Amino acid sequence: MPLIKIDVVKGRSDEEIKLLLDTAHEAVVGAFGVPVTDRYQVLTQHAENEIVIMDTGLGIKRSRQFVLFTIVSMPRNAEKKQRLYKLLTEKLQQRLQIKPEDVMVSIVCNEGCDWSFGLGEAQFITGKL
Amino acid sequence: MPLIKIDVVKGRSDEEIKLLLDTAHEAVVGAFGVPVTDRYQVLTQHAENEIVIMDTGLGIKRSRQFVLFTIVSMPRNAEKKQRLYKLLTEKLQQRLQIKPEDVMVSIVCNEGCDWSFGLGEAQFITGKL
Amino acid sequence: MPLIKIDVVKGRSDEEIKLLLDTAHEAVVGAFGVPVTDRYQVLTQHAENEIVIMDTGLGIKRSRQFVLFTIVSMPRNAEKKQRLYKLLTEKLQQRLQIKPEDVMVSIVCNEGCDWSFGLGEAQFITGKL
Repeated sequence: MPLIKIDVVKGRSDEEIKLLLDTAHEAVVGAFGVPVTDRYQVLTQHAENEIVIMDTGLGIKRSRQFVLFTIVSMPRNAEKKQRLYKLLTEKLQQRLQIKPEDVMVSIVCNEGCDWSFGLGEAQFITGKL
Repeated sequence: MPLIKIDVVKGRSDEEIKLLLDTAHEAVVGAFGVPVTDRYQVLTQHAENEIVIMDTGLGIKRSRQFVLFTIVSMPRNAEKKQRLYKLLTEKLQQRLQIKPEDVMVSIVCNEGCDWSFGLGEAQFITGKL
Repeated sequence: MPLIKIDVVKGRSDEEIKLLLDTAHEAVVGAFGVPVTDRYQVLTQHAENEIVIMDTGLGIKRSRQFVLFTIVSMPRNAEKKQRLYKLLTEKLQQRLQIKPEDVMVSIVCNEGCDWSFGLGEAQFITGKL
């Protein structure tokens, strides 16, 4: 937790995908202060015509490098979320030359009882987490 | 915002996919009153056996044309949501001959701090949106 | 309702996918007490490098058989959710030899007005459900 789903346009090499996922995870660890093993990522690659992303008039230009992060997380405060947006964007630019214009994030929150990380248990309820 | 994920069975042409996304967006603009540039759509195409959709006994027959809309949105009232269901269904039928039986929607709500539309900023917090 | 999205690594036969979806649905029916026709499932198959799932230090080993369930549901109590985690895990192990270590679930809740099951109607509002 958090669980991070990532949508991109096809065309990256396996190395780039690995670097993208590693870098995104680093940002999560840095912004949310979770352990390095708190990593739950699922990427989906799309044909170019399957993703249509505009900007609500913000003047943000998108490219084929666009990356959408859809995150499910327990409640976290606005400061931490803002730190995540910043860190994600900075790190993806530094490591993968992804432009800040191409990073979008949407977070949805749930509660402890909404998670089972395996073994049929709700680890936030049983006290293991 | 809203962010709209769409799941369909493979088999549509690129023209049909474009028309599907354009039409869905028109319904969102009409129902929610958002700007035309408030468009955030991601489509995933599936093998037929990857989608199993029944009807909870409602008597709704599904076909291969089935379209699932999974939406993340800031809170909107029930009237607007109902207007969206109606508009989506009407427009998809008019433009793509998709039957009203084949349109399903599920919405999840979040808050302003849960969105970054690019540039590492939380535009609903910084006041840009 | 609930709507269940499932992410797995590619490599299962059509028979295994059918059995996976059927078995998951049985667990939902058993845990939540919904009708057998209350079935809304969408599976996405991924390349192995698109899914990176760790364990937050819980000591849970993952394999290629890993299955992620992302569920959207109206509010249900923690007991029912815990029953779902247990049933899902037990049944997937019995029927498909999927290890309990390879079953992860994340639930997000919404409300009656957030659903349209077809026909452009909000069936929880109109009283049909």
